Amino acid sequence: MSEFSEWFHNILEEAEIIDTRYPVKGMHVWLPQGFKIRKHTLNILKEILDKDHEEVLFPLLIPEDELAKEAIHVKGFEEEVYWVTHGGLTELNKKLALRPTSETAMYPMFSLWVRNHSDLPMKYYQIVNTFRYETKHTRPLIRVREITTFKEAHTVHATAEETEKQVQDAVKIYKQFFDKLGIPYTVSKRPEWDKFPGAEYTVAFDTIMPDGKTLQIGTVHNLGQTFAKTFDITYETATGEHEYVYQTCYGLSDRIIASVIGVHGDKAGLSLPPDIAPYQVVIVPIIFKKGGEEVIEFCKNLEEKLKLEANLRVYFDDRDIRAGKKYYEWEMRGIPLRIEVGPRDLQNKKVVTFRRDTQEKEIIDFDPSKISETITEIMDDVSLKMKDNAGEKLENNIRSVDSIEEAEDIMSQYGGIVTFDWCGDRECGKDIEEKVKVDILGVQLSEKENSTCINCDKPSKHITLLAKTY
Amino acid sequence: MSEFSEWFHNILEEAEIIDTRYPVKGMHVWLPQGFKIRKHTLNILKEILDKDHEEVLFPLLIPEDELAKEAIHVKGFEEEVYWVTHGGLTELNKKLALRPTSETAMYPMFSLWVRNHSDLPMKYYQIVNTFRYETKHTRPLIRVREITTFKEAHTVHATAEETEKQVQDAVKIYKQFFDKLGIPYTVSKRPEWDKFPGAEYTVAFDTIMPDGKTLQIGTVHNLGQTFAKTFDITYETATGEHEYVYQTCYGLSDRIIASVIGVHGDKAGLSLPPDIAPYQVVIVPIIFKKGGEEVIEFCKNLEEKLKLEANLRVYFDDRDIRAGKKYYEWEMRGIPLRIEVGPRDLQNKKVVTFRRDTQEKEIIDFDPSKISETITEIMDDVSLKMKDNAGEKLENNIRSVDSIEEAEDIMSQYGGIVTFDWCGDRECGKDIEEKVKVDILGVQLSEKENSTCINCDKPSKHITLLAKTY
Repeated sequence: MSEFSEWFHNILEEAEIIDTRYPVKGMHVWLPQGFKIRKHTLNILKEILDKDHEEVLFPLLIPEDELAKEAIHVKGFEEEVYWVTHGGLTELNKKLALRPTSETAMYPMFSLWVRNHSDLPMKYYQIVNTFRYETKHTRPLIRVREITTFKEAHTVHATAEETEKQVQDAVKIYKQFFDKLGIPYTVSKRPEWDKFPGAEYTVAFDTIMPDGKTLQIGTVHNLGQTFAKTFDITYETATGEHEYVYQTCYGLSDRIIASVIGVHGDKAGLSLPPDIAPYQVVIVPIIFKKGGEEVIEFCKNLEEKLKLEANLRVYFDDRDIRAGKKYYEWEMRGIPLRIEVGPRDLQNKKVVTFRRDTQEKEIIDFDPSKISETITEIMDDVSLKMKDNAGEKLENNIRSVDSIEEAEDIMSQYGGIVTFDWCGDRECGKDIEEKVKVDILGVQLSEKENSTCINCDKPSKHITLLAKTY
Repeated sequence: MSEFSEWFHNILEEAEIIDTRYPVKGMHVWLPQGFKIRKHTLNILKEILDKDHEEVLFPLLIPEDELAKEAIHVKGFEEEVYWVTHGGLTELNKKLALRPTSETAMYPMFSLWVRNHSDLPMKYYQIVNTFRYETKHTRPLIRVREITTFKEAHTVHATAEETEKQVQDAVKIYKQFFDKLGIPYTVSKRPEWDKFPGAEYTVAFDTIMPDGKTLQIGTVHNLGQTFAKTFDITYETATGEHEYVYQTCYGLSDRIIASVIGVHGDKAGLSLPPDIAPYQVVIVPIIFKKGGEEVIEFCKNLEEKLKLEANLRVYFDDRDIRAGKKYYEWEMRGIPLRIEVGPRDLQNKKVVTFRRDTQEKEIIDFDPSKISETITEIMDDVSLKMKDNAGEKLENNIRSVDSIEEAEDIMSQYGGIVTFDWCGDRECGKDIEEKVKVDILGVQLSEKENSTCINCDKPSKHITLLAKTY
């Protein structure tokens, strides 16, 4: 196991995120702390999506014939689909698939729902569990057999132009979401051979994990009319004709939590953005023989104050254990801010703050009329700095190269992402992947003029991102 | 189909709660309106449970050997379990069950989690989908093959006494929850032959649907040490011994939504308690040729005001369709309060309110400084009246009888619940069920002294509830 892998597994256990001892490979238990982080993360996502999407919930099981209807799509998933074959002691007439993704569950219904041009656009999403029989090595939250947190959005449009625009809107939505989590990303168009089965093209979000490998954390697919034709989804135009619709879909998974853990974590453990931390502030009393009651009283008031006035999630840790043990625990669990209060602080009208992100202690004035505002400002600054620091790390890990050799060098020395001009041809791409022994992540439009492919000297219109991927 | 069945199916479709056309029997799609009702309902439940339970999430799939460990339990479910036998094109070494309920998924982990007496009690819950291969006639939200909304709580305790107390606490929790929804209930102990497979005893909540049949809407099980012994869940006592734990579990399902629809609905459609209505207030402008702009402006301000000041979910319906059509639609969808605003109302400083529950129109004074308070008071009164009316209907449908013949008569004439003294013996109970041709729902402690069984004249310590059940 790599150093990062070991750290990642340890922190999942120690911070009580996930229990990996469940007796089915690749399927895990969300523990209370992990569940809270997941819940707050999903709340951010729902708030963004609810502005113009409707939340729905489709069945888990998909009949064999529906799943098989779209040939390219089923080909992409046939080796990964779990099959239900028996109900009780009876063999089912028709096998049922555990959804690997929900196009083939949803689109037969869309075919019933879409009638008229005035029904469009339709924008739905659901957050569900999905299943993939992974044959590769599984990793909690990263490569699993039960994806417990699969957010899939599906939209239906009248025209190809609207669909293009929806892809851009989805990219904006995901940017907004990842920015909130302080997760930096690259956005690129996946190469032809790596797009979603059935899509015209796929745009993907990747971040870089501490071991230099990239993690795909979100995808947006332009489905064109592929599924509309397969599932007969048509609408009546203003002039009475029947036309096939255009569609997009876009998804996120448990990997959003994996990226938060990986990107922000450090040797001391988790470091959580305030928006998703189970507690945003913990208050630890420093009690000596004298003045204990005053300290407790003060801490309780502070807790109530911050909850009511600043609407923060606050925990007053008055457990009867050493303060040092509490410090260690809350740092490891990634709680953004600790406030320490001792008898001398009360006398001096001060409290001590400790920021998890910078690991810095500060003595601040305690003014009851301003403390809520002060703490809120610190929270905002934590969010901002965490995002900036993570963004800087990502930038430093993206390196532009001029030759295949340089790409190889950098890849073996640093990992991360290398970028270069590429013609975009499949054969040339496969050749590059073979030479550098890592994958082409995707392409972005180049701003340079008259550039040529790093590998075959043909003209190149875009730059390519190359990375060792999870 | 009975009259109620037909009404129920129609309203699910017309109010866009559930789409029943999904191509697998007993599995349905939650539509946006239904999903919102479900979401608000679950939020109430979570708020109550989060006070002293931790939310977790366990895998869907349970290995065959774990499911089979507890013999009585597996016997109770073996005809209903869906089995996954293949991953991709490969047959699995070990079959995986789709959870019918999660004891056998959770308790092997509890065996790892519980160490010491100080770990206890533990109280967890999760909200998940579960699966039962129902061979009986399926009905949306009532008898389904995918239960999409299964709330299951599982607690672990050191002593039998604490477990008894937890059963009572769970009953209190469910009472609090159903009271919030205005759903009346009876609470009774299920007869031995109808308890949860593996439980010492089961306490159940039932309500009466408009067709006179009872619907089980919640259950609380005292599991004693049955599962602790099967899954080896032990704790170390203060004196260093290892003892088996005691457990309870309690659950709710999609039926909570079915009961809201059935209990509160009427000929005009749904009628929703304000706490769970997608919108609590709709504002409908009455526009004639003159004064249209002022009315629109007024409605928009009112919408903002009610949202901000009263924190209500408000919809301003300015669609270009007849007001009558809007009235019909919002009544059918069960929105608790409609506010109508016309130009004359503005002049008179009045608005018209229409309460869905009482179907009464009222002209109320519009005072901008008081309107939010007034509407909040109306909302509170709606909640209260809906609960009281539903409670009264239930009470009227519970009839005490002194003979088997009377029980038969009442059952065939009214349905509902009949109560009588019963000795509690299994054979006598079966005899009664055969004679009256309906089920014994459960027993409650009798307050009468020296009563005798209605059927066999043996002494009786409790009264029994008899009903035709869903």
